[in-house]
Amino acid sequence: MQSLQDKASEWSGVAAADAFAIDEVNVFEALGGTPQPFVDLSTNFYTRVYEDEEEWFREIFSGSKKEDAIQNQYEFLVQRMGGPPLFSQRRGHPALIGRHRPFPVTHRAAERWLHHMQQALETTESINPDTKPKMMNFFRHTAYFLVAGNEMTRQMQSVPPCKHATSKPAE
Amino acid sequence: MQSLQDKASEWSGVAAADAFAIDEVNVFEALGGTPQPFVDLSTNFYTRVYEDEEEWFREIFSGSKKEDAIQNQYEFLVQRMGGPPLFSQRRGHPALIGRHRPFPVTHRAAERWLHHMQQALETTESINPDTKPKMMNFFRHTAYFLVAGNEMTRQMQSVPPCKHATSKPAE
Repeated sequence: MQSLQDKASEWSGVAAADAFAIDEVNVFEALGGTPQPFVDLSTNFYTRVYEDEEEWFREIFSGSKKEDAIQNQYEFLVQRMGGPPLFSQRRGHPALIGRHRPFPVTHRAAERWLHHMQQALETTESINPDTKPKMMNFFRHTAYFLVAGNEMTRQMQSVPPCKHATSKPAE
Repeated sequence: MQSLQDKASEWSGVAAADAFAIDEVNVFEALGGTPQPFVDLSTNFYTRVYEDEEEWFREIFSGSKKEDAIQNQYEFLVQRMGGPPLFSQRRGHPALIGRHRPFPVTHRAAERWLHHMQQALETTESINPDTKPKMMNFFRHTAYFLVAGNEMTRQMQSVPPCKHATSKPAE
């Protein structure tokens, strides 16, 4: 069976080594060691998302306040890119597949998400030009990792999770 | 609605700040800066799990080779505790809830898991005594975070994931 990682690489066109090049240097420190560039990026991104002319995509986010979406994303990014674990302190493990479970993370939605993120990255001046392609590779690979995760969890709905899950354990 | 983090704290008895005290110092560096202590711990742990006299618990792991279980766990721990991102390079995001989705992560299973981990920690000499209670708090909180995640994903099976997931998006 093809792994989540393999699917993410194949569908995104980004090899795992390129996706996780963000770990070769501490991106948080390279961008000045404060959350501000990530706040800027997430604000820029979600402003585009919440104003998207494509209603089907905008609607995916309609259950959340824009301010909350921004905070969730920038706290995750700060933590994942080498800064303090803001997300885990407030909300626990990122658990990306689990937390995206309510949303239809399709190939099409991933591409629309990436379209807005590409534009947000290009217009966020507090992120330096060297870092942008690394972050974009991470985003592209991660978006398709979540498409693969979405398929995995939805497939599992049609079969019992495992033979032991529904049977009462022996004493 | 009570969050995953709140449930994890309530059920485990470990506050989020104590669970993520592992981030206050770099645990990987504090233990010598090599994966060896984590290899030792995971080998010790899974040796107990795969030999558990309680069949219902041992059976949960019967679909995986012990060597693979050890590698998955120690690579995750190295990465999460401040070392190189071994897990993500090989398998992608930890995605703890998604990857535990096939398993019956009940309160009872969490307690059995923690029983073995407590014993493994106590008998792993390459982990220093100062670090052990921090790691145990992290494990205890995380185990119940996954119990909460397990409940969340199983509840979602009985209702459509969201109103947009099954409808075809408008062009």
